[in-house]
Amino acid sequence: MPDPVLLVLDAEPSPRLGRLTGRVDVRYADAASLAERLPAADALLVWDVASDAVREAWPGPGPRPRWVHTASAGVDRLLCPELVASDTVLTHARGIFERPVAEYVTGLVLAFAKDLPATLARQRERRWHHRDGQQVAGSRAVVVGAGPVGREITRLLHGLGVTVALVARTARRTIHGVADLDRLAARADWVIAAAPLTESTRGMFDRRFFGLLQPSARFINVGRGASVVQADLVDALNRRWFAGAALDVFEDEPLVPESPLWDVPGLLVSPHLSGDTVGWRDRLSEQFVALYERRSRGEPLPNVVDKERGYVPSADLDAPGGLDALNG
Amino acid sequence: MPDPVLLVLDAEPSPRLGRLTGRVDVRYADAASLAERLPAADALLVWDVASDAVREAWPGPGPRPRWVHTASAGVDRLLCPELVASDTVLTHARGIFERPVAEYVTGLVLAFAKDLPATLARQRERRWHHRDGQQVAGSRAVVVGAGPVGREITRLLHGLGVTVALVARTARRTIHGVADLDRLAARADWVIAAAPLTESTRGMFDRRFFGLLQPSARFINVGRGASVVQADLVDALNRRWFAGAALDVFEDEPLVPESPLWDVPGLLVSPHLSGDTVGWRDRLSEQFVALYERRSRGEPLPNVVDKERGYVPSADLDAPGGLDALNG
Repeated sequence: MPDPVLLVLDAEPSPRLGRLTGRVDVRYADAASLAERLPAADALLVWDVASDAVREAWPGPGPRPRWVHTASAGVDRLLCPELVASDTVLTHARGIFERPVAEYVTGLVLAFAKDLPATLARQRERRWHHRDGQQVAGSRAVVVGAGPVGREITRLLHGLGVTVALVARTARRTIHGVADLDRLAARADWVIAAAPLTESTRGMFDRRFFGLLQPSARFINVGRGASVVQADLVDALNRRWFAGAALDVFEDEPLVPESPLWDVPGLLVSPHLSGDTVGWRDRLSEQFVALYERRSRGEPLPNVVDKERGYVPSADLDAPGGLDALNG
Repeated sequence: MPDPVLLVLDAEPSPRLGRLTGRVDVRYADAASLAERLPAADALLVWDVASDAVREAWPGPGPRPRWVHTASAGVDRLLCPELVASDTVLTHARGIFERPVAEYVTGLVLAFAKDLPATLARQRERRWHHRDGQQVAGSRAVVVGAGPVGREITRLLHGLGVTVALVARTARRTIHGVADLDRLAARADWVIAAAPLTESTRGMFDRRFFGLLQPSARFINVGRGASVVQADLVDALNRRWFAGAALDVFEDEPLVPESPLWDVPGLLVSPHLSGDTVGWRDRLSEQFVALYERRSRGEPLPNVVDKERGYVPSADLDAPGGLDALNG
């Protein structure tokens, strides 16, 4: 019986497979060759996380990988009915992006509160223009998405004295259900979207939602671009329904130079970098190698995604021990 | 015997004297009339904190205010040998600026770590340019100045997982003495100046000091402009000795359009606003009214400055209870 094949849906720079190198039969595929190579693979590492190739190439009945790991927090690009229905285990890169994204969001909150973009603009004009900033302590935030990223954002903002309401699909203990969102958003200074892209979150931030916000509110999306109806956001900002927004994620990435999003008043656009801090690719590689070895030893895999829901359920995140072992 | 006179060295907008209005004999002075009016005053409120008038107008022997309160954290503009030598009590606006300044510094640290100024510049160019950010958690900061502002900066950065060394003139317990500064600065990611302006801190951040920093380090000054030798800072940044700096305070404020500081590579210039959040003038007024009433009741004044040293000594800050009563 041949060695099990580890297939990598590759992207530049390739993962560092470290201890697996020379010990595991590693093959590489790109979007074009994936369909052909998938059936022979025992495990698939999705390294090209910006690709829709898995969803498009996933085989129906017959041989297919028993395990898929994606080097991303979100899994929306991978999921297709056949993969959901199969007994293939799907794991994701939990523990890598949470802190960087939470720091990024905290930085945006402070930059907005202290009017930093305007300070940089005045500096270019060589103009001394004193303004009063906003105190972040005592302000109110709503974080939509109670996964690991939303929880870390909540933790950091709470540390700065912000009153944070965390919103998930269903209410449980200290987490609000989405039924509370309108009420919470209407009095929030900061609305932060860190939700997975699912059929319930697609387009949830729309004209109706933006109409609820306070004139002083800011909206930040570090989840998935398609959660936001971009035309509605642009329209709401142009009409000054609320004070500002920052988008790090977009329906189509990279944003083309012709996109109308680059110069909307009050909109800060960044190139999907909130989770990426120096060394992140190495940390993703190391995490995969550790998961691979764990599986080889017959131990249960952590970071398993509920394929039906399209994310890691809150209940699993709340469970003590176990799942966090690899994530420190 | 006439009512004691409360003299206000005024600035626009004037303080809201609230409960004192109609009950206290309030007179107003500007820089030109201060010398003439000072001898008749029992108390002086320095509301125009950007003025050197107190130092210039302070009387020698003879009648003078028994109490001076300044609506600022720093007292360097007020102190003259005659005021220091007198038995006049000097109090300052402790408890108003600490949190805003600490939030501002934290925002700058995150903005630098996440390369936010470059992100805004790329947005103006409609250019998608992914970069890896820096993780703030695990980085190292040195905060120079162990007064209330330096301590609050330390607290907020520590909450983000930064290892912070706090430096004062003399070492005590968890605070480093200035003798440790070179060693600490040489391995710091962030050097934050929040020191009072005294004869020991004037010009302390000079060519020699900037030469110690790591190429990746950033320097932030929210203390007093004259702590920095501006020409040395500009030269060090032009030579890329370290990665960036932010100045919120300057020897001469406001900065004139002709100043060379506006366009130094890597230098962020802001108009002395770090401590000023919406409502700050009202909070300063309320604090003064509370101090005035406390003194009228014969109770000891908190927030007393050590005039010889030019700041509130650390030992007083460490003392339990007492001094913090008015500052919550």
